[in-house]
Amino acid sequence: MAILSGIHPVAEALRAKRPLERILVAQGAGGPRMQEIIDMARRAAVPVRFEPRGALDRLAGSAAHQGVVAMGAANKYADFEAVVSSQLAALPLIVVLDGVEDPHNLGAIIRTAHAAGAGAMIIPERRAAGVTDVVAKAAAGALEYLPITRVTNINRALEELKEKGYWIYGLDERGTETYDQADYAAPTAFVLGGEGKGLHEQVRKHCDVLVRIPMAGKISSLNVSVAAGVVLFEWKRRVAARAMGPAESTTTIRA
Amino acid sequence: MAILSGIHPVAEALRAKRPLERILVAQGAGGPRMQEIIDMARRAAVPVRFEPRGALDRLAGSAAHQGVVAMGAANKYADFEAVVSSQLAALPLIVVLDGVEDPHNLGAIIRTAHAAGAGAMIIPERRAAGVTDVVAKAAAGALEYLPITRVTNINRALEELKEKGYWIYGLDERGTETYDQADYAAPTAFVLGGEGKGLHEQVRKHCDVLVRIPMAGKISSLNVSVAAGVVLFEWKRRVAARAMGPAESTTTIRA
Repeated sequence: MAILSGIHPVAEALRAKRPLERILVAQGAGGPRMQEIIDMARRAAVPVRFEPRGALDRLAGSAAHQGVVAMGAANKYADFEAVVSSQLAALPLIVVLDGVEDPHNLGAIIRTAHAAGAGAMIIPERRAAGVTDVVAKAAAGALEYLPITRVTNINRALEELKEKGYWIYGLDERGTETYDQADYAAPTAFVLGGEGKGLHEQVRKHCDVLVRIPMAGKISSLNVSVAAGVVLFEWKRRVAARAMGPAESTTTIRA
Repeated sequence: MAILSGIHPVAEALRAKRPLERILVAQGAGGPRMQEIIDMARRAAVPVRFEPRGALDRLAGSAAHQGVVAMGAANKYADFEAVVSSQLAALPLIVVLDGVEDPHNLGAIIRTAHAAGAGAMIIPERRAAGVTDVVAKAAAGALEYLPITRVTNINRALEELKEKGYWIYGLDERGTETYDQADYAAPTAFVLGGEGKGLHEQVRKHCDVLVRIPMAGKISSLNVSVAAGVVLFEWKRRVAARAMGPAESTTTIRA
């Protein structure tokens, strides 16, 4: 069972009408944002119980729950086939993570991908962070809106995305084009490597285009969530520019 | 005295010829990267001592030092007057942080600012993270190259930057222009607010231009280090485009 904790994640889960089994509020906790959670829970017929703070500490695995813990939801992960199915193939952007291990980074990337307009995220089952409470917190509510699918084999997932018509872009320092020069074809799948390791050899070979971020200074890489922000918001900017008309899109893309 | 720990931060400190008093290596620690540190330290005449791991744990304040801790350096912060002085006024980009409190975020922003080509960073003395060991680690070596200056009053610092000819851009969700539409005048000072709070009222009033990042989805903000990546790399992209010639810069900027 997934445990959500903290005012923001629980409020977002309620707003997104995510199925919750129960909400626990620490005895003595209050304030307008807590009251809003209690009101939303009542309207959604989610039972609210007031419990000693220690009970919430144990459930949340820490004392950083701000007085509220939610228990839910049946399934944290979306079905891969559903995500790439014809119905969802209209998604312009899927973000694929090749082994991001730090839960704060995973959460920040989920938040960033949602804000850049991604329709789904694909993560591997092994050697990677899964969707935990820490991830949900770092995602600041975005986990409620961005479907995450977990696959046993990233390379096979990329093959299936290609078959569905996705163009696979990988971020890699050996990229032949810079991220702002690439001509982003839609639908796009963007593959990002893990912390300090970049893309795995096999994953890199499955990419249609490798792009790199040109760096000033003496450090060769960015934090993976910062790199995600740089490339995904460039993708967003370019899609917006293209929507404004072909002439502009051409000058912007080829500038 | 500043304590640096971890293979990457210590190696970068040596490469940057930062004055170090001494390097402690855990007994039994080894490997080619550790050997490289020991060799560089010997060439730089920095004493190396082999100590029990527990001694390093105590100095570093945790066990995550990867077997190496460096003690240095006289002064962690650059002088504000020196940074904005005529000699340094040629710096095209200064990043100003208005109250970033999380050391991981501060470190990631230092790394990002350096990689985007910033020449210096200004942080406030109070209600903000200072440069600690955690920050140095998250900065992945960039702290060795990016001068950080700490000021008692951010608003006064912005006034002085204006007097020196800097144009002050603030990132704020109430911004009238989007970050990719603004016409970045050089030299630029970019002001970023703290986690979840944005810019302080007075700081906002000191900005010449407020820019915002347009967001898709239902979440209203990005992690501050991700937001820094988005805007600072757009600044870098635009400066590079401008260097390629006026025609291109015009279409890109006004697109």
